[in-house]
Amino acid sequence: MFEITAKEGAARTGILHTAHGSFETPFFMPVATKGAVKHMSQELLEQSKTRVFISNALVLYFTNFDAVRAAGIHGFMNWKHGIFTDSGGFQILREGFLLSISEIGVRYRSPFDGSRMLLKPEQAIDIQNKLGADVIMALDDVPDYAKYGNDFEKVKLATERTYRWAERCKKAHRQKGQLLFGICQGGIFPELRKESAKAIAELGLDGVALGGLSIGESKETMHAMAQLSISRIPEDKPRYLMGLGSPEDMLEAIELGIDIFDSAFPTQNARHGTLFTSAGKVRIGKQQYKAQLVPLDAACSCFVCRNYTKAYLHHLFRSAEPLAKTLLSFHNIYFIQELLEQARIAIRQGKFSKFKSEFLRGYKAKEP
Amino acid sequence: MFEITAKEGAARTGILHTAHGSFETPFFMPVATKGAVKHMSQELLEQSKTRVFISNALVLYFTNFDAVRAAGIHGFMNWKHGIFTDSGGFQILREGFLLSISEIGVRYRSPFDGSRMLLKPEQAIDIQNKLGADVIMALDDVPDYAKYGNDFEKVKLATERTYRWAERCKKAHRQKGQLLFGICQGGIFPELRKESAKAIAELGLDGVALGGLSIGESKETMHAMAQLSISRIPEDKPRYLMGLGSPEDMLEAIELGIDIFDSAFPTQNARHGTLFTSAGKVRIGKQQYKAQLVPLDAACSCFVCRNYTKAYLHHLFRSAEPLAKTLLSFHNIYFIQELLEQARIAIRQGKFSKFKSEFLRGYKAKEP
Repeated sequence: MFEITAKEGAARTGILHTAHGSFETPFFMPVATKGAVKHMSQELLEQSKTRVFISNALVLYFTNFDAVRAAGIHGFMNWKHGIFTDSGGFQILREGFLLSISEIGVRYRSPFDGSRMLLKPEQAIDIQNKLGADVIMALDDVPDYAKYGNDFEKVKLATERTYRWAERCKKAHRQKGQLLFGICQGGIFPELRKESAKAIAELGLDGVALGGLSIGESKETMHAMAQLSISRIPEDKPRYLMGLGSPEDMLEAIELGIDIFDSAFPTQNARHGTLFTSAGKVRIGKQQYKAQLVPLDAACSCFVCRNYTKAYLHHLFRSAEPLAKTLLSFHNIYFIQELLEQARIAIRQGKFSKFKSEFLRGYKAKEP
Repeated sequence: MFEITAKEGAARTGILHTAHGSFETPFFMPVATKGAVKHMSQELLEQSKTRVFISNALVLYFTNFDAVRAAGIHGFMNWKHGIFTDSGGFQILREGFLLSISEIGVRYRSPFDGSRMLLKPEQAIDIQNKLGADVIMALDDVPDYAKYGNDFEKVKLATERTYRWAERCKKAHRQKGQLLFGICQGGIFPELRKESAKAIAELGLDGVALGGLSIGESKETMHAMAQLSISRIPEDKPRYLMGLGSPEDMLEAIELGIDIFDSAFPTQNARHGTLFTSAGKVRIGKQQYKAQLVPLDAACSCFVCRNYTKAYLHHLFRSAEPLAKTLLSFHNIYFIQELLEQARIAIRQGKFSKFKSEFLRGYKAKEP
């Protein structure tokens, strides 16, 4: 269930109602592929203002299906708020997983124990029904941009197959109260993007995700494809742009009317020492921070910025202390959650456009 | 300042008064060699009931002396309770640090940037004075047990030098309110242990540490050496057995009259998947835990045992998720802190001996 609560141009705020709570959109989901967000506990996630994250049904299936199913994914991971699961379609891009694709489904090999399986759309839904996330994703055939992103016929096949699989997913879905989102594809081809978005939207699922973006194409292309897709999705559906997570990209996408994001980008950056701050990106490993006994971002209210200094974070990072990754991941996630909270407030006040340009002026500044 | 508050046989409880609070003994210190306890934040340390930890002055000197000195070690690390620093004597056992030892001091090479230094006892104190820990340690010449632990003459030389260095440390110490502990050595030679303990104790420092133990000798030898040393230390001095951290070893040592412990043993075990529980050790990676939707230790009140199951911890550990190391380290530290809290209560009630045997009955049980 989704309701729109405010609009400013194409940007909007809304509420996604799920079995584990109602969440204001636009929101950002950290990625817990294997059942945990890297270097974060669920206690820290909650403290970071995260209310929804996304895990991966295929990975959980391969690693510990019985236990997750028995406890339910919320119980297994100790999370009382919202959880999405991805279906496993994205693992088509992972050589460690993919064996082959056909109309029937995807043949995968587990990188964990070598076991093999044929993931049909019906089974992708059945697994997700049993794991019990609040929002589940249809199985999609993600065209591999690096391998054949410019091959119209191949992308067309994958895009049309994604639609047929979405139909099968809809039919297979049996879990009342669990929302099912379709995923549209189309690669970098405007016609395919428009057709796919229209067709997936017409299935009348609970939401529409934009897949196969942010996987190697240029930012301009990504932006254009997102805009084209959105133009074919009815306004009352929540729109989820998969794989996007940089502050500037998310603000652009919110302006287009995107409601939901997920990405490992903030935590990946943190692990490599790149921190988001209101005064620009900080690469904490640089010598210049060695003696700076000031917060990473004086404007940030996260516990890392309140309790620790740049000098200490620099010290931990350069000493390869594991704590560095936890503190830096926490800050980046909190920074994003705060940013989206501010964006929601700005949209409700009709000031999003101003908010966005003011934020970007500080954020795109030279490293302090 | 140290006061004894209760006694049962040789075991005792007391209070160590420092510039950052008064701490009940016996207590256990996690090890923050490079300025952080592995996989733990200071927020988690506090939650684990830790009130005092030990860091390493030589490592901080080599990595970020200026910033730590400017902020003070408490400010730098964001810790308002007690901090010990070790002097750098222990790094004599580390090939990555040691160049040579002479009567003047120890020549070290920094494994971080290759820089060299001569650490005299006077400088070991000066560095620690400037870092500002609550309790600092004299520089000791630790006999390398693996290399010449059985060579009486070599151990005698190191032991006597340790005394001369302790005298120099006492003379060099200038920081009012900062406690200075001496360290006695003696290897596995009873006469040397007794002489060293007596001589160090007679310097009248704020406490006496037993060094050069738990570095390869048998448990029986360690126990005997500790007992001999204690017999030569006046009762009113706090006694610190360096490097000990297993539940059973600490209970034995408490029975001998030890007041303070430090060790990386609980966190090292945790990282390798070995957890302390009231019903025995658990090796969480074992298949048998894969579907156990029950707490690691139902008798434990730590947030890991309250919020997560063995199946989830097994899953994280087997998936090499970084969160595994944090949750497991937290549990082991909390378990130790709880154990020492119970030990203190038992001593005050005159029931330590009973408490110890009851605990060990459960703890030494077969893996559940």
